[in-house]
Amino acid sequence: MPAVSDEGMWLLNDPPKQHLKDAHQFDLTGAWVKNAMLGSVRLNSGGSGGFVSAEGLFVTNHHVAADSLQKLSKAGQDFLHDGFYADTREKELKCPDQEINVLQEIVDVTGEVNAAVKPSMTGAEAFAARRAVMGKIEKDSLDKTALRSDVVTLYNGGLYHLYRYKKYTDVRLVFAPERQIASFGGDVDNFEYPRMNLDIAFFRAYENGAPARTPNFFKWSETGPAGGDLVFVTGHPGTTQRLETLARLKHRRDYTLPYTLYRLRTLEAALKQYSEQSGENARQAATDLHSVANARKAFSGQLQGLLDPKIMEQKQKSERGLIEGAAAYKQRVSMGEGPSDPKWRAAFDDTLDALAKIEAVQVKLRGFEKEYGLVETGHAFFSPLFGIARHCVRMGDELPKKSADRLREYRDSNLESLKYQLFSPAPMYPELERAKLTASLTFMAENLGGEHALVKLVLAGNNPAARAEELIAGTKLLDPAERKKLVEGGKQAVDASKDPLVVLTKAVDAEARKLRTQYENEIEEPERQAYAALSGVRFLTYGNSVAPDATFTLRLAFGTVRGYEVGGEKLNFHTTFGEAFEKAAKLDGKEPFDLPKRWLEGKDKLDLSTPFNFVSTADTIGGNSGSPVLNRAGELVGINFDRNRHGLVRNFVYTDVQARHIAVHSKAVLEALRKLYPAAPLVKELTGK
Amino acid sequence: MPAVSDEGMWLLNDPPKQHLKDAHQFDLTGAWVKNAMLGSVRLNSGGSGGFVSAEGLFVTNHHVAADSLQKLSKAGQDFLHDGFYADTREKELKCPDQEINVLQEIVDVTGEVNAAVKPSMTGAEAFAARRAVMGKIEKDSLDKTALRSDVVTLYNGGLYHLYRYKKYTDVRLVFAPERQIASFGGDVDNFEYPRMNLDIAFFRAYENGAPARTPNFFKWSETGPAGGDLVFVTGHPGTTQRLETLARLKHRRDYTLPYTLYRLRTLEAALKQYSEQSGENARQAATDLHSVANARKAFSGQLQGLLDPKIMEQKQKSERGLIEGAAAYKQRVSMGEGPSDPKWRAAFDDTLDALAKIEAVQVKLRGFEKEYGLVETGHAFFSPLFGIARHCVRMGDELPKKSADRLREYRDSNLESLKYQLFSPAPMYPELERAKLTASLTFMAENLGGEHALVKLVLAGNNPAARAEELIAGTKLLDPAERKKLVEGGKQAVDASKDPLVVLTKAVDAEARKLRTQYENEIEEPERQAYAALSGVRFLTYGNSVAPDATFTLRLAFGTVRGYEVGGEKLNFHTTFGEAFEKAAKLDGKEPFDLPKRWLEGKDKLDLSTPFNFVSTADTIGGNSGSPVLNRAGELVGINFDRNRHGLVRNFVYTDVQARHIAVHSKAVLEALRKLYPAAPLVKELTGK
Repeated sequence: MPAVSDEGMWLLNDPPKQHLKDAHQFDLTGAWVKNAMLGSVRLNSGGSGGFVSAEGLFVTNHHVAADSLQKLSKAGQDFLHDGFYADTREKELKCPDQEINVLQEIVDVTGEVNAAVKPSMTGAEAFAARRAVMGKIEKDSLDKTALRSDVVTLYNGGLYHLYRYKKYTDVRLVFAPERQIASFGGDVDNFEYPRMNLDIAFFRAYENGAPARTPNFFKWSETGPAGGDLVFVTGHPGTTQRLETLARLKHRRDYTLPYTLYRLRTLEAALKQYSEQSGENARQAATDLHSVANARKAFSGQLQGLLDPKIMEQKQKSERGLIEGAAAYKQRVSMGEGPSDPKWRAAFDDTLDALAKIEAVQVKLRGFEKEYGLVETGHAFFSPLFGIARHCVRMGDELPKKSADRLREYRDSNLESLKYQLFSPAPMYPELERAKLTASLTFMAENLGGEHALVKLVLAGNNPAARAEELIAGTKLLDPAERKKLVEGGKQAVDASKDPLVVLTKAVDAEARKLRTQYENEIEEPERQAYAALSGVRFLTYGNSVAPDATFTLRLAFGTVRGYEVGGEKLNFHTTFGEAFEKAAKLDGKEPFDLPKRWLEGKDKLDLSTPFNFVSTADTIGGNSGSPVLNRAGELVGINFDRNRHGLVRNFVYTDVQARHIAVHSKAVLEALRKLYPAAPLVKELTGK
Repeated sequence: MPAVSDEGMWLLNDPPKQHLKDAHQFDLTGAWVKNAMLGSVRLNSGGSGGFVSAEGLFVTNHHVAADSLQKLSKAGQDFLHDGFYADTREKELKCPDQEINVLQEIVDVTGEVNAAVKPSMTGAEAFAARRAVMGKIEKDSLDKTALRSDVVTLYNGGLYHLYRYKKYTDVRLVFAPERQIASFGGDVDNFEYPRMNLDIAFFRAYENGAPARTPNFFKWSETGPAGGDLVFVTGHPGTTQRLETLARLKHRRDYTLPYTLYRLRTLEAALKQYSEQSGENARQAATDLHSVANARKAFSGQLQGLLDPKIMEQKQKSERGLIEGAAAYKQRVSMGEGPSDPKWRAAFDDTLDALAKIEAVQVKLRGFEKEYGLVETGHAFFSPLFGIARHCVRMGDELPKKSADRLREYRDSNLESLKYQLFSPAPMYPELERAKLTASLTFMAENLGGEHALVKLVLAGNNPAARAEELIAGTKLLDPAERKKLVEGGKQAVDASKDPLVVLTKAVDAEARKLRTQYENEIEEPERQAYAALSGVRFLTYGNSVAPDATFTLRLAFGTVRGYEVGGEKLNFHTTFGEAFEKAAKLDGKEPFDLPKRWLEGKDKLDLSTPFNFVSTADTIGGNSGSPVLNRAGELVGINFDRNRHGLVRNFVYTDVQARHIAVHSKAVLEALRKLYPAAPLVKELTGK
């Protein structure tokens, strides 16, 4: 299963230099990588971006910015729909709870983490020991460097790296276009190509009230990429499952994904019904609806992939390849060849043991996965208000403990970021939350049945609709001051609270914690150990030619700008502005194929042959949204925003026959900003002109 | 559990005369009932209607007519959206596959049906014997009367009645308004009140090429109902579950309804995605989408009802009441009182036995309900093309057998109606069917898992999307001539067919038939016997004061025209034209709150105080759509088209606190036809003026 072609979301401290030299005659220098690392931005609302000036300006996607655009909007002032531009620094709008991270350094801490876990430990002991040592490493690093410090699990447990980030919480909105052109084609064209989307937005990071100094940034290319060009994508892919075993993938196919799709379709139906009631309702629900619809489409593609016998055969083949490699290695050892480290003598047995262990774990998981998802992950409570109530309740219990003994999210090194989110003044809409809660409480009852003790406990003598109404009508947690009071008052304040959401959260917390512990000890820890073993065998057989699965940490991918064929039709590697107007005309300009007034009226000003979106074979996944696309010189030639439907199976396998990621062309951004938007200062900051 | 207040969907041969006299001082005469019976129409596409002239003209709902409107439309000519009016007989449009039935006579055949089933028989033998005797009664009746003859199971097995219908298959479209006003508010306002919908359409039944003579019709009231009026609803309620046991209802709540909602939301998401791609796509999918969304909303309401502890307590109370009644009766018998029929001495034991039997049946059902639904009911194959393929395949197997031994739908007395549907020239759209099939095949895989033998058999080495594409690309069944060839060629033609849908249907048919037999013998027959026993006890205790559950056969309901309160707000018993314009203005005339051009431009011509929709307490359910609402004089004062959300629990319990059915006011129809539509001949036929 070694990486072929342009596969791989590579670690910045272990990039595929030789492969790039061999396959693309490109010499990846340390300086190039360093600039890519320090110029790349992670948005903690979920997405990527890149600095494009030395004064903290960074670009990302409109659909990544949507979270902030929504939170900055209100009835009658809809930045998400209408767009925004601050032509002076003073007009830039501070986002209520946006945090961005910029990776500064990676340290391998695998030895230290693994040393804390002894073979004699039970699953529970091992999990606790691992959590404690990770927490300690993070806390020490934070104390020493003042940088946000996260231990990242790679290869599902094969490696542990410490990531140190510079953190910015003063992030201000600079520019966003109208949603009509940012996501022209909406959900219909999501994960499709050809596309014509100006899916971009600009923010500026501030420090101490002034624009942050960001000397490592990406120079904006005036020309963009040509067909056949080698390009790089530097960003934060969320999760992939390429190294998962066949048993795990079958569990996903037959249990996790059906449940997930059932859930997403339930939420999507509820959000659509809410949205259809009025224009203001639609505005309130816009980002929730987009998130849910986007996830539904992505997971649907994953399910089609796992139901494709050809893909399952490929996964089976690679798993057998691993076993075969281990067997061959055992053979070599018995013949006196190979490395002398004694632990590798057991590679063959370890491989089969690990595969069997992971298979057994899936059987266990089936027994409580739904309860775990509903109550601990919170699928039964589809409202940020529940998450808020839970943090208030759990902080009362956890904060008095030592940091290393707390649930991981309450470790000292994470508290500042957590509170920043928790006390966010972003607006919430009670009627929307009621509709969402009704849907998710109903979903819980559908999944567990009306006689289930948890269902009875949660519904408390009501049906889901009446219960949701009662909870939302009674809670005061929409007000951040109430949240602060509870957190500052600690366990005593929580216990005294009569807020129905707090009371509910407390009532289910024993069961929720039980499920979490069961998940950690019986699923997470045994899987980590098993994957660590498989990972060892894989290193042995393939060296570092297989990249780890994605973990929402910085990765470098590369690929070739190239069109593809579908059903005999050749699709060019880029689209043009002209195609957007053609498509809108063909579909009578009906939503979601309606262009903004500015575009319709400004059509004549535009060079319609300007390249708009382009595709490449680089390896991306969700989380890569907003990633800078760079050329050999490290200049920004595009902003990644999507992949096509053929790319939806990339969670499990890389393919470059038809699968492509899709990016906004750097030239399109300049052409639009220059001709249609009154954004001359922004253009000047990007280009110097 | 005897009927109180205005509860009940009553049999036309056993109406609640005494109750009407006592509660409403109304003397229900034989002549009144006879006219109601002969004036009422059942549309076999699912809905009700009523004759409104002596020349075959009948009224129903626009949403009932939608099936025909859709089938009469094509790209560029959308009668469903734009409406239709034939101002001369010659312009009336023949519907491709509409059949209507008019009930002529009811004969009690309970004795004959039950006599065929001996206590010593196994479930399989009893089912076969019952099917055979029902088939024989129907065939004899058809031969004797030339009327469509159906044996109807009442009280879930307590009574069997033979219904004789006059059948019309030449049904022509006369008038339909624009969908915008027919279902103003769309899915958002479905099952809501206040409503302002002109949800009506007119058809004409023809016989021998000329308008049918229909001397029994309902005179159109120029005034409509006033508040407090007694009104009657005569129509064909589909199904209710009021007499089901608690165990059965819990099974519905925890298994059947969650599965159903999962399925409907899956189909709705797929249909919406298809619709959003273009205006023409939206046109093609319109009726499917409405059916699915409507069902989703109705079943959601049912689930909320069954998850409401108050309603479950009510059901438990009534079940305990039945046991208590039987116990009291046993007591009386032991004291030498009560009727002498020995079979009633066992009433108490019979009741408990029957309840236990039904509970045991639910446990069995859990073991194969999903497979049964997916493969035999056809949920895995959400396309009429699969139903067509299955009929072709099964007719090859069944028609050579004696009528009494065939699967019930292929009995001689049903063949004519079945072929009329099967060979319908109504248009189908391959891309739409492909999208629907993709969704339902995926749903099957989600429910059964990728390793299930049926999933592997059905998908045949593809993922669901690729399999759907292959099936639709290869089938010739879109052409009715191909279907005729297969049916006329019999089993030989079917076996020789290489049509992929035929091949698939044949491949799954052994398993599908096995599941059907299992359902019939292990579920349907034992339940019938158990419900027959409960039904006997109920008659004994309550006499005929409890109406049977709905069975899509003609029923008479009655109620009082009366508003109600929600959250402190008083809702008037009727709305007005003016309110439609106000609501449209308030919501910026955005879909689904957009009024037709004709209405916007004609506003000044209308008397805006004209009553538009009204509500009453009469007992209705799905299938009652299009039912005539009559006053004491038997005149048509409204056309029922919906019930409010408080009425969604009426599947299980009747309530009149807030639950209402909703009807179009007879005066609104005349005002709109006179002022807005060029429909003078239609008005003259209705009113004589």
